[in-house]
Amino acid sequence: MTDASVPPSAIDRLTCVIPAGGVGSRLWPLSRANAPKFLLDLTGSGDSLLRATWDRLAPIAPAERVMVVTGNSHRKSVAAQLPELLAENLITESEPKDSSAAIGLAAALLELRDPDAILGSFAADHVIRGDVLFQRAVTTAVQAADQGYIATIGIHPSHPATGFGYISCGAARGDLAPFDVYEVTEFVEKPNAAQAEQYLADGGYLWNAGMFIARATVLLEQMALAEPELVRALREIAAAWGTEQGAAVRERLWPSLPKIAIDYTVAEPAAAAGKMVCVAAHFDWDDVGDFASVANLLTRGRGSDLAVLGDGAQVLSDASSGIVVSESNRLVALVGVEDVVVVDTADVLLVTSKRRAQDVKNLVNRMKVTGGGHLL
Amino acid sequence: MTDASVPPSAIDRLTCVIPAGGVGSRLWPLSRANAPKFLLDLTGSGDSLLRATWDRLAPIAPAERVMVVTGNSHRKSVAAQLPELLAENLITESEPKDSSAAIGLAAALLELRDPDAILGSFAADHVIRGDVLFQRAVTTAVQAADQGYIATIGIHPSHPATGFGYISCGAARGDLAPFDVYEVTEFVEKPNAAQAEQYLADGGYLWNAGMFIARATVLLEQMALAEPELVRALREIAAAWGTEQGAAVRERLWPSLPKIAIDYTVAEPAAAAGKMVCVAAHFDWDDVGDFASVANLLTRGRGSDLAVLGDGAQVLSDASSGIVVSESNRLVALVGVEDVVVVDTADVLLVTSKRRAQDVKNLVNRMKVTGGGHLL
Repeated sequence: MTDASVPPSAIDRLTCVIPAGGVGSRLWPLSRANAPKFLLDLTGSGDSLLRATWDRLAPIAPAERVMVVTGNSHRKSVAAQLPELLAENLITESEPKDSSAAIGLAAALLELRDPDAILGSFAADHVIRGDVLFQRAVTTAVQAADQGYIATIGIHPSHPATGFGYISCGAARGDLAPFDVYEVTEFVEKPNAAQAEQYLADGGYLWNAGMFIARATVLLEQMALAEPELVRALREIAAAWGTEQGAAVRERLWPSLPKIAIDYTVAEPAAAAGKMVCVAAHFDWDDVGDFASVANLLTRGRGSDLAVLGDGAQVLSDASSGIVVSESNRLVALVGVEDVVVVDTADVLLVTSKRRAQDVKNLVNRMKVTGGGHLL
Repeated sequence: MTDASVPPSAIDRLTCVIPAGGVGSRLWPLSRANAPKFLLDLTGSGDSLLRATWDRLAPIAPAERVMVVTGNSHRKSVAAQLPELLAENLITESEPKDSSAAIGLAAALLELRDPDAILGSFAADHVIRGDVLFQRAVTTAVQAADQGYIATIGIHPSHPATGFGYISCGAARGDLAPFDVYEVTEFVEKPNAAQAEQYLADGGYLWNAGMFIARATVLLEQMALAEPELVRALREIAAAWGTEQGAAVRERLWPSLPKIAIDYTVAEPAAAAGKMVCVAAHFDWDDVGDFASVANLLTRGRGSDLAVLGDGAQVLSDASSGIVVSESNRLVALVGVEDVVVVDTADVLLVTSKRRAQDVKNLVNRMKVTGGGHLL
């Protein structure tokens, strides 16, 4: 029982929001409409990425303060993965509306529960190694958030990645926390190889891990500057949530919400307005966006190794590297293929290269148009 | 009914011998111990290579004069493929002893049936396009054979192949046939790329297709010069063949026969002795030794194409080339992989490249030692 006379500290007002959307079509045919990336085990740990995300957050926030926003069709899978998740903290979208709506709805619900609520948004399908460093970074971000800033967590780059956006950082903000908090100068899009090298040489750039920590109300007010109608609708949905009118209100408003990433409604405008800060963190992070990332993750960056993912996978390799993902127990024999990607599922076999792993998405898009949608 | 007063012409004394041995381990996992290369359909025609060989020979020799030499374990499969094959023309080996023993046994059986018998040996697992040209070449070879020579058929090379042996040809032998017969200067082993280019530039070299046409007795006498004990044993086995002692004699002698290719016991010594001639032929020929050959065959040499083999094969290709062999009907999706070889069978998936297709044999040899033999 909380003593009402002592206001809870900032970290105790943190609710972790896990947006669990996105099929991850670059990971097809492992990822499917009914097996989105966040339900996959991409590390060989035996846990889905969603489950691992929950476990990582557990030391920071008890179950009452962890919320998952997901699609209607994933409700059962999410509940099965997270038996501890409270029913009222499983928020479902009738259709996907990108991250502004998903995180904004969570914020609108949270500010009704507690006007001082702090929201931390953490993707359901990223891989993090170094949970203690992660938890320390979140705690620091919460301190900044409590003081009215929108905080993000930036990752010290281990290599000039071209697959991530970067955060250009400015002066240290020792006034917000003793360590690791910096101004955000700007968010920059995924660079080309030369730019990425330049960012690392410059030294002031961190990987944008897409994590946002802010007071729920601050987040919504920032979003309202860019998308006032969106925020008004989200607050209306939240106000009716759990009442008799809840479903009707959501049904009326949700379909017309704009699909827009929170980067554009909150992060970039807040950075431009000097309201964004960044916690520079040292944990290992990867958004495992494609099979090349999965391979690098499993081989810990040793590109000449062959990564194998799958409980029953049987692989015989002669002078081959890359990754084999197998959902069967039949033998996968590789002879002299380097940087290959082989994904062996019951109804689809994918063969590509690490270099072309991003282009799997194009094939998926083509199949949506030309047929084969039942395999997606 | 043959009029006994007129000796049958040479072509009517030809018996075609089809040695059907050899798993074709470079074509694993399509080829298996119980599905050797000659039982496979590698052209997409619907016929096995053995069946296609039979059909190619049918216009030259009636069923009474076509003989198949194969392993005991393939007796039923061969009979199923070739219902026309006479029981007495299906010769089985209790264990494989390479081509000298296999063809030599056929020769020993034939010379007992007819001292003037001409034997033509044609592999069960090669692919030929241009049956009329083939039949014409065989007819020419038979003319030379009838006059006591050992004839082979050489193929005009279409490209500087490094996967075949070559025949260096000398002067035309118009005395043996009006067209296309030449002295054999020597047989040369598979060349490297530079040598192959040189052979084509020189112009006097043909591909060695491993076909031999000779009087049965001439062939055996030539073999006896190199391997007298082998020929003595083969003649002893042949003499007892079909008698009560037949099985016992074969069982006693066969296991100790030397394993040696007919190239070394007959072709090369005969060439050195000036007893070998070559018919220069213009049909398309390939021994389809590996998946790169299968791909080239199916795409008719267009290396940028993707070949697909398999009745139910479903392939979706984005900027990919090479070959997909599928025994299933699941989707094989390729993204940006060039010259790839994908062989999708029920219990083994092979991924390699056309360049490395030869090395599949090494993997198979490794599996014999390290386990996985049940998959071979």
